[in-house]
Amino acid sequence: MKKGVMRAGHVQIRVLDMDEAVSHYKQRMGLLETHREGDRVFFKGWTECEKYSVILREADSAGMDFMGFKVDSDARLDELHADLIEHGLEVDELPAGDLPDCGRRMSFLAPTGHRFELYAEKEVTGRHGVGHHNPEAWPEDLVGMKATRFDHCLFHGEDLDGVYDIFVNVLGFWLTEQAMAGEERVAQFFTCSMKEHEIAFIKAEGNTGAFHHASFHLETWQDVLHAADIISMHDISLDIGPTRHGLTHGATIYFFDPSGNRNETFCGGDYFFPDHPVVTWDADKLGKAVFYHSRELNERFLTVTT
Amino acid sequence: MKKGVMRAGHVQIRVLDMDEAVSHYKQRMGLLETHREGDRVFFKGWTECEKYSVILREADSAGMDFMGFKVDSDARLDELHADLIEHGLEVDELPAGDLPDCGRRMSFLAPTGHRFELYAEKEVTGRHGVGHHNPEAWPEDLVGMKATRFDHCLFHGEDLDGVYDIFVNVLGFWLTEQAMAGEERVAQFFTCSMKEHEIAFIKAEGNTGAFHHASFHLETWQDVLHAADIISMHDISLDIGPTRHGLTHGATIYFFDPSGNRNETFCGGDYFFPDHPVVTWDADKLGKAVFYHSRELNERFLTVTT
Amino acid sequence: MKKGVMRAGHVQIRVLDMDEAVSHYKQRMGLLETHREGDRVFFKGWTECEKYSVILREADSAGMDFMGFKVDSDARLDELHADLIEHGLEVDELPAGDLPDCGRRMSFLAPTGHRFELYAEKEVTGRHGVGHHNPEAWPEDLVGMKATRFDHCLFHGEDLDGVYDIFVNVLGFWLTEQAMAGEERVAQFFTCSMKEHEIAFIKAEGNTGAFHHASFHLETWQDVLHAADIISMHDISLDIGPTRHGLTHGATIYFFDPSGNRNETFCGGDYFFPDHPVVTWDADKLGKAVFYHSRELNERFLTVTT
Amino acid sequence: MKKGVMRAGHVQIRVLDMDEAVSHYKQRMGLLETHREGDRVFFKGWTECEKYSVILREADSAGMDFMGFKVDSDARLDELHADLIEHGLEVDELPAGDLPDCGRRMSFLAPTGHRFELYAEKEVTGRHGVGHHNPEAWPEDLVGMKATRFDHCLFHGEDLDGVYDIFVNVLGFWLTEQAMAGEERVAQFFTCSMKEHEIAFIKAEGNTGAFHHASFHLETWQDVLHAADIISMHDISLDIGPTRHGLTHGATIYFFDPSGNRNETFCGGDYFFPDHPVVTWDADKLGKAVFYHSRELNERFLTVTT
Repeated sequence: MKKGVMRAGHVQIRVLDMDEAVSHYKQRMGLLETHREGDRVFFKGWTECEKYSVILREADSAGMDFMGFKVDSDARLDELHADLIEHGLEVDELPAGDLPDCGRRMSFLAPTGHRFELYAEKEVTGRHGVGHHNPEAWPEDLVGMKATRFDHCLFHGEDLDGVYDIFVNVLGFWLTEQAMAGEERVAQFFTCSMKEHEIAFIKAEGNTGAFHHASFHLETWQDVLHAADIISMHDISLDIGPTRHGLTHGATIYFFDPSGNRNETFCGGDYFFPDHPVVTWDADKLGKAVFYHSRELNERFLTVTT
Repeated sequence: MKKGVMRAGHVQIRVLDMDEAVSHYKQRMGLLETHREGDRVFFKGWTECEKYSVILREADSAGMDFMGFKVDSDARLDELHADLIEHGLEVDELPAGDLPDCGRRMSFLAPTGHRFELYAEKEVTGRHGVGHHNPEAWPEDLVGMKATRFDHCLFHGEDLDGVYDIFVNVLGFWLTEQAMAGEERVAQFFTCSMKEHEIAFIKAEGNTGAFHHASFHLETWQDVLHAADIISMHDISLDIGPTRHGLTHGATIYFFDPSGNRNETFCGGDYFFPDHPVVTWDADKLGKAVFYHSRELNERFLTVTT
Repeated sequence: MKKGVMRAGHVQIRVLDMDEAVSHYKQRMGLLETHREGDRVFFKGWTECEKYSVILREADSAGMDFMGFKVDSDARLDELHADLIEHGLEVDELPAGDLPDCGRRMSFLAPTGHRFELYAEKEVTGRHGVGHHNPEAWPEDLVGMKATRFDHCLFHGEDLDGVYDIFVNVLGFWLTEQAMAGEERVAQFFTCSMKEHEIAFIKAEGNTGAFHHASFHLETWQDVLHAADIISMHDISLDIGPTRHGLTHGATIYFFDPSGNRNETFCGGDYFFPDHPVVTWDADKLGKAVFYHSRELNERFLTVTT
Repeated sequence: MKKGVMRAGHVQIRVLDMDEAVSHYKQRMGLLETHREGDRVFFKGWTECEKYSVILREADSAGMDFMGFKVDSDARLDELHADLIEHGLEVDELPAGDLPDCGRRMSFLAPTGHRFELYAEKEVTGRHGVGHHNPEAWPEDLVGMKATRFDHCLFHGEDLDGVYDIFVNVLGFWLTEQAMAGEERVAQFFTCSMKEHEIAFIKAEGNTGAFHHASFHLETWQDVLHAADIISMHDISLDIGPTRHGLTHGATIYFFDPSGNRNETFCGGDYFFPDHPVVTWDADKLGKAVFYHSRELNERFLTVTT
């Protein structure tokens, strides 16, 4: 947190069929449905203190509507608003309540075609089931993969330098890991916390808002196995895993929600402090950097929703 | 990181016999000996990027000499220096090199009798064995408990309000967890990162610098079991565990180094963001708050080195 | 399986209050209630193929009524019946149906005061939830500790030579592990399978049928932690753990059901083949042999129900 | 153990380059080299009590020379010898010492082209590093994947009925799991212990002694991840995994030794008692039966050494 941006706070994902999607995110991923409003359904992982972090919206195409980052105060929101404008971006200020139980949001379109936003206030409802007064270790009512939290997103895009500028120079994120093809950065991972990434971009043609995956944290590698089992038990479309990433070293599975949006559940991996050297992977080792065990990109890796 | 303090960066511990101590911290805990200078031996965990985090000094009594926190810039060091003085503390500025490969340090005695210090520069040598260029998942030369990093310290002291003031109001830490006896705070956990605690204090009589334990992070609960096995194989004095804490919910073992200093190795537990509500345990549940499974303090819990 | 005895097949335990007991074994231990008949309630773990393995009977005192071993054929039952009688034991033949869905049983009182029985037939209902046709990895409806099976019992008794004779010489069990005080065997573990023990005895005064614990298998050390958490969440009386045994090296927790009968849930540990040397612990290391990490017997270790 | 066959006791594997092979099985798999004799090198896993279980022989082609099963007595060896001959097999009696520290062996060629043998005696050297007197939990000198034992082999062959007859009807194994294409058994798993398989066959054209893999047991799913990491760190050819099998439900990785022989390291999975119903997978679900998560056979699945 260099300029007051705290973490990836929420993501709004488009789904083709809400009933199927709710069943997937709730029964399979184990997220908690917190409420519904209009055509949207809201979820969180059990360790998250804010009211919600995942928003599903029924639409004709899958993909991501926007991803929001929480900042540490309302004053900071104004500062960063000014900084974004100075950087040359158009910023839309959305009023408090436009997103339920959430304060005003500063929304902008990144040069990769992704819409991001900042916000400073959202209702804090505390950890599910255990609360904050003599809290037990975990709630007993969890189901499915027992995802603990929405963790980060990975996007594909062409203008990696453009989003580097915004995240590092304007919003105060740190570059934690990168893949380099000679002098060109073809993968870049950013954080504003101790997590090895809050957001990441991989080079691909077209600045069309390509959505690679939203990622959810699991407690242990045992939980990753159980998540893979659940994928099989319920005939969910598996992309790859269980395996490990080279980048961040998280232990992971990729799979698809019923609308074709890729999900990740993962555990472990490296952590970040601002004095850590940037981790660099050579692009000719990108296979190992992405899928550490197979050491090659699978053919589905380029599949995205937009 | 609200005012630029990044993390618990190092701790200097007094030991009665250096050979025995080196064998314990190196062969049993699995820390890496980085170098020796004068009467001191320096160590780090394999995931730590700075050159060292643990310093052992041979002396006639066990205990802690000082604990240091890293700040994010040299300018910040001067700001915090001024803030500490304004708060009424005497601050000694120790020159760069006084601690090898470390920049100048601002040292002060807290009202609980513990000496703390801030520093902004220390040589960064990177992750042991894997480095930062196409890094493998972990190094194969680790031994013993394979401690990944020095994580935090817990102290006993009387003037909890005094150190609260320093850590929260002067240094910008957050209070993450507490135990309350009515209106009185009898345990307080502080962080400046996403870790649930970088430092913690428990109420006890006397402001004598009582050192409860230095804690080291392990990757998994499997590693906690192996650590307990190693304790038994090598006839190390066990305090308690494997078990879980109620406070922070980390999974833990307490044991003693050959000089009687308590060590902790732990994994997991809760994480922190600045918008998380403070966790409060009632003092009449302190047994469960400290040792979640047995739900009672053991008689050794009050044993400290000073 | 040297003389056709396959495994520990069931145990009947007396409880003081059936409602509390059912809640404990079902909601906390995660056993499945299979049916009720008269004053008895029947349970099994989800991996067990027979209809039930644990029988609770409401009574005025806690303790064990009997433990049954399954043999591999009806003919074998007659052979072993004859062998037991030749050994000088009184054997009661209980007719099929006396225990529901179970064939005839040969019951005898061991010189330690424990009642054991052999049976060859019990209804096989298969693995819970997954069955035997294209079986999924595990059922999703498990609760609490998710005990996978009734595993073994440990008893206290004086005439250890007497039961050694019966189990080893008459029933064809192997001695797998023992603790020796000079020439005297003070602990003896027997198996008829690959499990390191199907039944075990520890020397204690009085041949009164003292019941130390019934043990239930968990899949992983992660499950042992979760079991300990559940013990704490529901204020179950903990004896000791999570820890490891020296004998068998299983990772374990001991706790008490609401009637005061000790339960164990454990995972891992050693396995047996008939050519394995007997493992011997010296009695002066009995603390470590029983509780590998603390290396001392706790004061409750001698507590039994009879 | 119905007719005295105890377990899969050893396997002799042909390798193209002994130095590379020793490095693989010793440094990577973590087997212990026990001795060398002539052109052969002998290994065991640390939990195995016999002197060795894996024999490597340098040759011009990879593949398996023979797999041996231990029986419980010398008398039993003669009985089974007679039974094999009566079944119509040619049995070669190899004298004691032909295989070092091993008694006489009864060797026969199965109709699938695989050579199997029975033996009753081999030097018992006990568990590596811990022994059988006050044994510690595990030895600290293990390296690489820390394979605990040679566990089982899987073969391809055409005459599945022929080997069924030998293993079930002559040697007293049980059929534990199978895949059925209508009335035809296309996969069959056999055991003589509590392990879900000591040996298995999958239908494939040609009775040429096709060797699919030798399998080695790991303690935990954490160890499976570490094994996969080691595969990647040392550029070992990965086949598939980490993943789970549907058949037996073991958690697994397949990879290749430097000569092209497939190895498996795995943990967990189902266990067997003689009253367990046979598990049946439908052949149209063979993908899921073999690779539970991807639910499809990979193209390398048919690759074997002969």
